[in-house]
Amino acid sequence: MPTTMTAAQRRAAAKAAYDSFLAECPSRRLLDRISDKWVTLILAALGSEAPDGERAGRSMRYSELSRRLAGVSQKMLTQTLRSLERDGLITRTVTPTVPVTVTYELTGLGLSLHHLMRGVKAWAEANMDEILANRAEYDAQPA
Amino acid sequence: MPTTMTAAQRRAAAKAAYDSFLAECPSRRLLDRISDKWVTLILAALGSEAPDGERAGRSMRYSELSRRLAGVSQKMLTQTLRSLERDGLITRTVTPTVPVTVTYELTGLGLSLHHLMRGVKAWAEANMDEILANRAEYDAQPA
Repeated sequence: MPTTMTAAQRRAAAKAAYDSFLAECPSRRLLDRISDKWVTLILAALGSEAPDGERAGRSMRYSELSRRLAGVSQKMLTQTLRSLERDGLITRTVTPTVPVTVTYELTGLGLSLHHLMRGVKAWAEANMDEILANRAEYDAQPA
Repeated sequence: MPTTMTAAQRRAAAKAAYDSFLAECPSRRLLDRISDKWVTLILAALGSEAPDGERAGRSMRYSELSRRLAGVSQKMLTQTLRSLERDGLITRTVTPTVPVTVTYELTGLGLSLHHLMRGVKAWAEANMDEILANRAEYDAQPA
């Protein structure tokens, strides 16, 4: 990077450094990771308003998440939570009760992704009827 | 549905009818379908500003899409395009040139999803550095 670049030019260059259209860019793998229905649903569950309405997001126990994401396997939930923790999107807190209590909460970074992903979830729910109608129309066409 | 519901109540009931937290809800499968890096990248490619800047989105030939989505297999691209067409998110136009020209374009519904998904793509690119740092920190922790 030439040293004659201004600070703004350096920021722009750094920003342009990731492009998920490129196969070898790490952001392509990240996009793949976060493009996952379980990620979307975990973020939606943790990002929903707490009952007291005092803060964005809530902390949930593993068992609560497991119930909220109907049909998720233990293996899939555990793996997805660990990868979200590793990426810094959620925190995992172990409280030394008997038995121990493990809770999960969104970080600021996780909350920022949640705000985008909840739109995708809401879109899927809001446009389901139209999409079912489109599919029926497509399938009725002569091959 | 009781006939004594008001129009607003009926709309609310219809809206609440889809909930992707539920395993058996069709919106769960739709969320799974659209949570896909190739869907995100196809929508991003077709939704990008046309060179003339006159309209949202552009029409692209199959070969252009294939080049833009570096590393996508023919099979994956063809399958994903067909499922997007079936869902009514893109249109496929065959022009009888020699050889025939096949172009793809976003529908209004596809454009509405693109507006959400481009945020997710931009988020992945913008936060890549922070996430790489988070991973390094996580991996450096004692097991």
